[in-house]
Amino acid sequence: MRDFFPDEIAARQHVFTAVREVFESYGFAPLETPALERLEILQGKYGEEGDRLIFKVMKRGAAAPGEADLALRYDLTVPLARVVAEYPDRVGRIFKRYQIAPVWRADRPGRGRFREFYQCDVDVVGPGFGLADAECVLVLTEALRAVGLDGFEVRLNSRKVLRGLIEAFEVDVSLESGVLTALDKLDKIGEEGVGAELVERGLPAATAAAVLAALPDEDEVRKLLQSSEAGAAGLDEVDRILDLAGPAMRGGRIVFSPSLARGLSYYTGPIFEIYVEGSPSAISSGGRYDGLIGMFAGRSIPAVGGSLGIERIIPLVAGVEGAVSSPAQVLVAMWDPSFRADALASAGELRSRGIRAETYLGEDGFREQLAYASSRSIPFVVLRGPNEREKGIVTLRDLRTREQFPVPEAELPARLSELLNPPT
Amino acid sequence: MRDFFPDEIAARQHVFTAVREVFESYGFAPLETPALERLEILQGKYGEEGDRLIFKVMKRGAAAPGEADLALRYDLTVPLARVVAEYPDRVGRIFKRYQIAPVWRADRPGRGRFREFYQCDVDVVGPGFGLADAECVLVLTEALRAVGLDGFEVRLNSRKVLRGLIEAFEVDVSLESGVLTALDKLDKIGEEGVGAELVERGLPAATAAAVLAALPDEDEVRKLLQSSEAGAAGLDEVDRILDLAGPAMRGGRIVFSPSLARGLSYYTGPIFEIYVEGSPSAISSGGRYDGLIGMFAGRSIPAVGGSLGIERIIPLVAGVEGAVSSPAQVLVAMWDPSFRADALASAGELRSRGIRAETYLGEDGFREQLAYASSRSIPFVVLRGPNEREKGIVTLRDLRTREQFPVPEAELPARLSELLNPPT
Repeated sequence: MRDFFPDEIAARQHVFTAVREVFESYGFAPLETPALERLEILQGKYGEEGDRLIFKVMKRGAAAPGEADLALRYDLTVPLARVVAEYPDRVGRIFKRYQIAPVWRADRPGRGRFREFYQCDVDVVGPGFGLADAECVLVLTEALRAVGLDGFEVRLNSRKVLRGLIEAFEVDVSLESGVLTALDKLDKIGEEGVGAELVERGLPAATAAAVLAALPDEDEVRKLLQSSEAGAAGLDEVDRILDLAGPAMRGGRIVFSPSLARGLSYYTGPIFEIYVEGSPSAISSGGRYDGLIGMFAGRSIPAVGGSLGIERIIPLVAGVEGAVSSPAQVLVAMWDPSFRADALASAGELRSRGIRAETYLGEDGFREQLAYASSRSIPFVVLRGPNEREKGIVTLRDLRTREQFPVPEAELPARLSELLNPPT
Repeated sequence: MRDFFPDEIAARQHVFTAVREVFESYGFAPLETPALERLEILQGKYGEEGDRLIFKVMKRGAAAPGEADLALRYDLTVPLARVVAEYPDRVGRIFKRYQIAPVWRADRPGRGRFREFYQCDVDVVGPGFGLADAECVLVLTEALRAVGLDGFEVRLNSRKVLRGLIEAFEVDVSLESGVLTALDKLDKIGEEGVGAELVERGLPAATAAAVLAALPDEDEVRKLLQSSEAGAAGLDEVDRILDLAGPAMRGGRIVFSPSLARGLSYYTGPIFEIYVEGSPSAISSGGRYDGLIGMFAGRSIPAVGGSLGIERIIPLVAGVEGAVSSPAQVLVAMWDPSFRADALASAGELRSRGIRAETYLGEDGFREQLAYASSRSIPFVVLRGPNEREKGIVTLRDLRTREQFPVPEAELPARLSELLNPPT
């Protein structure tokens, strides 16, 4: 887990704000859910890998030592499903929401991965397969463009395509979820690794080899899928999204990717991942999950959504111009502690003119006060000593040019405003 | 715990933004710490009441079932202390930070109180008693003014004043923390309740009565305190803050309040609470805690800070003008599904001109589409049917006036911009 200092926060907020603006430009509205959910809400929703990584919170009180009843949210999708089931009237028939918030996973984190990290989700709850699926892909790609990540590739598949392949290769249906878990690791452990895992999970070696051989060949896959009802339906979903999202997409391309499996167990239809050059793993992903909300609502409510891997995206985005350690524009320095009340009043006056003014709060000499301003990239320092006080002036120092000059007290706010916002 | 919907989030963000701007205008910079801390970091810092209310997180893996090693942050002050000790170089000799973030307490929450709630803290780490204490009070009162809460009263005391009273009444020093815990409940359980609790905690009944009788009488208290070194020092702290913060304070007043105790165990010097009419409990509080950071840093590092009770403040602030359920300014409706690609393209065109445009994602009739826009306070709807397509126009409907009129396709963005931003 990490602590973020002011300059890092500026860079993160820059990305969050750009993404939020794109989401809102599509009419997605914010939702905020609590960090803690009841444990039973989360358990059984994330597949065999996920369930083990849920952070569990202990029951309070002495009655039930060692038992857990709450858990930290593992993603933003299951909490959304709970909200939709809990507040049908506030949600309505179509609910478009985004959420940018931390989630927690009890993983042994790798380099650059953390146990607390932000997720950034858009979802459309209500409409069945169609336009909503295309729009989820489009809004995410527009968000990538907004933070400067052009040249992406959207890889698209459908769980129904995978089901079709399972049927085409006459794999026992009880092995389906294991096969998907294995296929999902293609990027990480390669064809050989996946082949071994498929066999380990019960696939005959010849079948495993045939599956892996067929996957890279789109024409072969399309032919195979015609033999299965699910396969043909999946292919139709893929083609409809390609038709709708393809022409509207800016800054990247979308392709059919029949080996794409996605680890989470709740997807039921189209699934996708987005890749950019320079990042080996996907920086965005999502899909349709028509069954998940029904687990809470007691009736089927279709939904589709996607997520930006915001923690992977932030390091890819160039540093933010002007990110500084202190938000102050001027430091009001002090000759000695007898000038405290003066300094408070002067800083207050500057603030009331819209200038962010910081009073030096220590009791050090002027040298230390200058060093403080400089270490925090505060561009201006105002000093008032006995001489200045007598003459009704202050000394204004520009730390960028190292110049300093006297300014009549009354003219200070106007003079500083001018220096901070030079006419262009 | 709560879920927040878009209109509630708008109201909360309005308060957060106003407060953040005031904090930054004083040169306080943001810090973000993780929700989870090691349990040992939090334990033993919050006094007898606090420790029981920490949410504990279970160790992962089968090795240690039922044990906890992590905990959800209980406030933002102890994590700050940990950060200061952990990163001395990034923090420097004076560190002014703010943090607005959720904390968690395993309380049986009362009406309007929740187990997850936001805290909003400013702290100055480094400088000893003096200007920093006055500035913490001032920045918090300015933040209250910024959200429209004038007419506040700052009640000021010092832990040294309380120590002085303990000495003046010859109370055994081992009873001090119990006496403070009891006094802190004066608002909640009244003089009689506190009297009973003081006796229960070991004070002779006559002493308890004498303490409670003296507290409301400032002159009497000032006289009593002269008999104790700690008392005289505490009085001096109080008077210096009154001198510095009093003249600079706008929108409210600051008074010496010798009965103010504050529950947390880590305060060492001045303490304060801020009250407004209409809220029975304090809406802000804080104080100096010179010992806390030393528990982590191994050397004494003075600090002072305060907190806005942001969850209490939000309901006191009038509703936000223009808070709506959807951020979209226009809904691009659809004659039938064959217009899907048209609608996507049209909404994209509007967005590229800076208009937040939502495509209707269901497959319902126009009536349902209008109802959707209306329920989400989206002011405009664009419809393109076969007629319109033939003529190269769209129908634009203003849901506020219920007027509708034809607009040539090419003129739609300009026309909508005009309607959304009428010349003033």
